Amino acid sequence: MNKKYFTVGPTELFPEIADMYAAAAAEGFFSVSHRSKEFEEILEATVNSVTTLLDVPEDFYVFFLSSATECMERIIENTVEKKSFHFINGYFAQRFFDIASLLKKEPAFVKTDFGTGFDFQITNIPDDTELICVTHNETSTGVALPLEGIYKIKKQHPDKLVAVDIVTSVPYYSMDFTFIDIAFFSVQKGFGLPPGLGIMFVRKSVLEKSKSMQTKGFNIGTYNNFIKLAANADKHQTTMTPNIPAIYLLGKISDLILERGVETMRTETEKKANLIYNFFDKHDTIKPFVKDAELRSKTTIVLETELEIQKVLEKIDYNGFVLSKGYGEYKDKHIRIGNFPVHRQEDVSNLIYLFRKF
Amino acid sequence: MNKKYFTVGPTELFPEIADMYAAAAAEGFFSVSHRSKEFEEILEATVNSVTTLLDVPEDFYVFFLSSATECMERIIENTVEKKSFHFINGYFAQRFFDIASLLKKEPAFVKTDFGTGFDFQITNIPDDTELICVTHNETSTGVALPLEGIYKIKKQHPDKLVAVDIVTSVPYYSMDFTFIDIAFFSVQKGFGLPPGLGIMFVRKSVLEKSKSMQTKGFNIGTYNNFIKLAANADKHQTTMTPNIPAIYLLGKISDLILERGVETMRTETEKKANLIYNFFDKHDTIKPFVKDAELRSKTTIVLETELEIQKVLEKIDYNGFVLSKGYGEYKDKHIRIGNFPVHRQEDVSNLIYLFRKF
Repeated sequence: MNKKYFTVGPTELFPEIADMYAAAAAEGFFSVSHRSKEFEEILEATVNSVTTLLDVPEDFYVFFLSSATECMERIIENTVEKKSFHFINGYFAQRFFDIASLLKKEPAFVKTDFGTGFDFQITNIPDDTELICVTHNETSTGVALPLEGIYKIKKQHPDKLVAVDIVTSVPYYSMDFTFIDIAFFSVQKGFGLPPGLGIMFVRKSVLEKSKSMQTKGFNIGTYNNFIKLAANADKHQTTMTPNIPAIYLLGKISDLILERGVETMRTETEKKANLIYNFFDKHDTIKPFVKDAELRSKTTIVLETELEIQKVLEKIDYNGFVLSKGYGEYKDKHIRIGNFPVHRQEDVSNLIYLFRKF
Repeated sequence: MNKKYFTVGPTELFPEIADMYAAAAAEGFFSVSHRSKEFEEILEATVNSVTTLLDVPEDFYVFFLSSATECMERIIENTVEKKSFHFINGYFAQRFFDIASLLKKEPAFVKTDFGTGFDFQITNIPDDTELICVTHNETSTGVALPLEGIYKIKKQHPDKLVAVDIVTSVPYYSMDFTFIDIAFFSVQKGFGLPPGLGIMFVRKSVLEKSKSMQTKGFNIGTYNNFIKLAANADKHQTTMTPNIPAIYLLGKISDLILERGVETMRTETEKKANLIYNFFDKHDTIKPFVKDAELRSKTTIVLETELEIQKVLEKIDYNGFVLSKGYGEYKDKHIRIGNFPVHRQEDVSNLIYLFRKF
């Protein structure tokens, strides 16, 4: 029996992927030069599909990197001379902050209890902040911040750049890019693809900052600095030989989701999330970790329990479902469930049935 | 008709790859967490296969990065406070130098005419050099430097680190890692895989340098600095969610080459290279670019001609073979032919037949 991966990413793959891969390999798509017309067409098709699916405006570059973690590094290198500001309510927001520290910047932060959100209205962001970093959907805690709150940051600080980690948000959550300057995700989450690709959307005007930093003598990185990334994006190319299969498949899976209907995907995601939250809200020993229903992520559902996590997961695994354990300090306290477009409602019902049985 | 990619990379894929990919996807190998036991087993298997195939000693780390270009960046960041020294005889050696400059180091160099080699004996390397960089097989010119020459560098400078670009060298060329501290390659060349993965071998003692740089306050990078890469390699893990399909397939293709016999692979590579060089040595209008037969690469064969390159390549392409054009300034003057283990002798004969016919 093949197992179902209800993990928060890497996760279940769209079953179409192996055939898509084989067909593309046979066509020579993974053998073409990344400086060829053929590759430019593959890249352009993917850019069109992804920006259509995620409503990314035309004044944004689409950069292809190797992971969301690389995106964090390149963002700090290319937009922060000294001061970034970080909203930290989980391990991935913390990672963004740590990367700024390691790059010898002077990051500041506001931190709340993991599993909760922020009052964006009252947060005091220093005037000399260059970049504000927010994690929309914290995969480590299952908190999805209200998008209006994130937009408020930009409304209050139009002079500062706002970067949003949307790693596990898309394609379910729809962003208004009017109030976001940079956003990034990776493909092994909401797109049901194997890992190995990070995508970053960067407002074209952000390049002014990178250029000014370069002129001032800052180290903005080498082959993947924003200036090189942009110059290559303009040609529908990449800075180095990229993960062509992942770029190709991301386009194809975006097309698939578009074909099946974005609204259908959203409605189904909400239905599945409701099924899971409703069940565990009434469960005796396993409860949703996020108490404020408004903050509960629809895509990464985190549960807490006093039960022995390893045993619960093994029992579920034995019955054909793989779930994620908790992150960091929650390793032995949390169960995390991925609820992405790839996951079918029927399987969610079966998973809940398993928990009911035990 | 499917075309044959006799390109210098990305190149022809091993025909087994699509089935290997489909089987692994069905097993859930591309859905597992990169912090799971299952992933550790995949990574360990690949490390064992690759180090066996390439004779990499046990006192070397195997790091998985996204591309050879990333390897260059991470090497400079983690081993050079100020001074690197570069042997430049082509565009890829030049790139290594440029990356050192962009990272605000003070790289020095010796440069020869592209298409030629070096007299390693007489090259004057400054005493305060920390890292010496050599490109063993210059994909842009078709020069393979004599390995004994490269070893001589280390013999003369045992106190300095030696990093060797072996991007298009392996698995055909066999390295003696006694005289190399760092080497790196990418999978879309000699391993006949789709692109998206860079592999780096780093002598474990090199870490002392990175640690000392970190203590002194140097920026050695973030998630992919050598210290984090090593800590994760020790656990058979990676620093971030990596390109799992590429890691898995690299192991499988290494096994395939081992099964078929390394000596067979080497003999066949030499036979195919001889066929190509002998033919073009006698050709009227298309000649090997590298005049010194001792320096001619067996894996990336570069030809020069006064003919209109685009027309020649189109004619060949029309007949089912894709070749690479020249690199950089040689774009309209060179034809480059990849001669990797994936390329069959029968197809080489057919390719030569095509050139004979025209």
